[in-house]
Amino acid sequence: MKKFAILFVLIISLCQVHGQQPVQLKSPEILKDNSVIFRLNAPEAKSVKLQGTMNTGWEGLEMNKNQDGIYEIKIGPVDPEIYVYTFQVDGVSILDPSNNIVTRDGSHIESSLVISGEKTDVYDVKDVPHGNVSAVWYPAEKLGMTRRCMVYTPPGYESSKKSYPVLYLLHGGGGDEEAWLGRGRANYILDNLIAQGKAEPMIIVIPNGNLMATSAPGETPLELRTKQNQQEMGTPAAMVGEKMQHSLVEDLLPFIEANYRVNKNKEGRAIAGLSMGGYQTLKTSNLYPDMFDYIGVMSMGVYTSVDDGFNKEGFKSKIEAIKKADPKLYWIGCGTDDFLYQLALDLMKIYDEVGLDYKYRESSGGHTWNNWRLYLSEFAPMLFK
Amino acid sequence: MKKFAILFVLIISLCQVHGQQPVQLKSPEILKDNSVIFRLNAPEAKSVKLQGTMNTGWEGLEMNKNQDGIYEIKIGPVDPEIYVYTFQVDGVSILDPSNNIVTRDGSHIESSLVISGEKTDVYDVKDVPHGNVSAVWYPAEKLGMTRRCMVYTPPGYESSKKSYPVLYLLHGGGGDEEAWLGRGRANYILDNLIAQGKAEPMIIVIPNGNLMATSAPGETPLELRTKQNQQEMGTPAAMVGEKMQHSLVEDLLPFIEANYRVNKNKEGRAIAGLSMGGYQTLKTSNLYPDMFDYIGVMSMGVYTSVDDGFNKEGFKSKIEAIKKADPKLYWIGCGTDDFLYQLALDLMKIYDEVGLDYKYRESSGGHTWNNWRLYLSEFAPMLFK
Repeated sequence: MKKFAILFVLIISLCQVHGQQPVQLKSPEILKDNSVIFRLNAPEAKSVKLQGTMNTGWEGLEMNKNQDGIYEIKIGPVDPEIYVYTFQVDGVSILDPSNNIVTRDGSHIESSLVISGEKTDVYDVKDVPHGNVSAVWYPAEKLGMTRRCMVYTPPGYESSKKSYPVLYLLHGGGGDEEAWLGRGRANYILDNLIAQGKAEPMIIVIPNGNLMATSAPGETPLELRTKQNQQEMGTPAAMVGEKMQHSLVEDLLPFIEANYRVNKNKEGRAIAGLSMGGYQTLKTSNLYPDMFDYIGVMSMGVYTSVDDGFNKEGFKSKIEAIKKADPKLYWIGCGTDDFLYQLALDLMKIYDEVGLDYKYRESSGGHTWNNWRLYLSEFAPMLFK
Repeated sequence: MKKFAILFVLIISLCQVHGQQPVQLKSPEILKDNSVIFRLNAPEAKSVKLQGTMNTGWEGLEMNKNQDGIYEIKIGPVDPEIYVYTFQVDGVSILDPSNNIVTRDGSHIESSLVISGEKTDVYDVKDVPHGNVSAVWYPAEKLGMTRRCMVYTPPGYESSKKSYPVLYLLHGGGGDEEAWLGRGRANYILDNLIAQGKAEPMIIVIPNGNLMATSAPGETPLELRTKQNQQEMGTPAAMVGEKMQHSLVEDLLPFIEANYRVNKNKEGRAIAGLSMGGYQTLKTSNLYPDMFDYIGVMSMGVYTSVDDGFNKEGFKSKIEAIKKADPKLYWIGCGTDDFLYQLALDLMKIYDEVGLDYKYRESSGGHTWNNWRLYLSEFAPMLFK
């Protein structure tokens, strides 16, 4: 017994020195019926609210002190989905200190809540073979920098001699190369679809879509950080001009095709993206109509208009070129509550005029990761077949 | 002009929908003399404190409202180092909402502050060739699970035919396989040392050192999460028994040697760890004295005592076996303020009795990442030469 007592004391000491408080509260606590209790110890706070993607509303839900003086709220039953949430303590946003699973999308950093069920079956980490995910640096000569992309290799890639097709997957405005993994669960979605025999094993390449960045914030070289501090970051840079698209096809694509066992032809290449990444997908496929046999535009519309003073005829001639290249799949997904919904409808009107064949997936909901995970889980099974 | 106006509105909309508020405050702001200003907008808060590893003390430093009603504090000049900090708002810990660089060590999640200077030159992301970092799943048959480790491959590995030596690097109690990267900057330390010609190009493998875990929290399979919820996690499990050590040498090591181009001999293998990982390093090298030619014990002492009711003679006989195996380097690092400092001295007393040759690095400070980054940056250059 004595040795365990000593061991216990030492481990507690180690944890404290590491700054890790023994977790005193269970939060979130998921009950059998998928109701969820959130708890926070904030004795000095005047008001604590729960704000999250679980229909808490923009204002959040007021939490109340229980008999132990702990702020608490029970919600639900909550539908199976992957959610993020924060507490608002006297108007200031905080992570749930009892929950060490945190996801980041750009500067949006929140606590994670997974309600497991049929819907999350394809998003969740399951006990199936997992593909590896690597942070890979490559020379982006068109942009004059070394950049970081994330590469998912499907289970078995490392021990096989086979060549694999590649999906280039683009994130949204404010995000970076980590967003499709942390928020989007792209690697686990593919693990599950492949394990179920629903998707072909494929490589996924996720570049950073921000023209002035090399990589996610914490991975940015000192030299660039210094430069960024000196000059205001040109925010719209990622959306204006064609540099990003040229770098994607002329820097990244050849790098991937030289360093991975991949199918180096149109049939083996797909491109898709959400929001800003949807815009970049449109623009890249318009510029290189013969490059990708699978094109996926998520939560984006006739946005191309913006940066060259929309010339409908010019745009249509690019879509004509895509039609001529006859991709195997041109896929569009948008939510009916998306603030770009009308622009997506306008985009398809043009495609109808040109006679481009496309598949349209209309979902409920808006410009959210719930939709983007859904779209990827439906788009990926249609690829490379 | 008009098109840029539209573009601007659309980007702002995109950012808002993504939940990303336009950053209004600059925090932390690093001034030319390395003073730092922290700012927080918390109009309803009664008290805001700054707490961090920049000598703010355990209680934190009181922040005051400036003329705009923003809580503010200026500290420093601050010595070049990598720090973490939080704000304490009415006693509740929050991240700095103006800073999107966050690091996690187990459940310890904090905002990051890098003060650049000579000392951080080796820790910081620099514009030098970068090695890739991969999350890799491997079969851990001794533990009956598929586990995740992080693998750093040095710049040039992917395009070379050479074989490389391997450092197995172990994290501390409460941490996981991501800690040596996020907090420890192990990949960037090696990038910099290799670029300066100070360290041999090497592969670094960072397993998860918690016996009951497969991986970092967000990457744990549903099946295991469910099991963990049903039974209390056996906290001391990672420290008791020898399963972890056997799995490291008999599961992970053969996996790495089969899947990477590595030197498959004692001269090509190093093992090192901090705190709990230092304990695991001691125990692994004691169990397998002929396996590693380089052994590094950071911030740990005669801790082995704990789980087999310390038998000094038994321990000494293991150290005799290591002495006989004649490793090229047995390295010990500890801070004079470390709560395990005396145990580290006790450890070396035993080594002196046995006559084991070791190098001891005593630093100031305690059981902190400042020391562990320092130790890695000094230990790595001594390896594989």
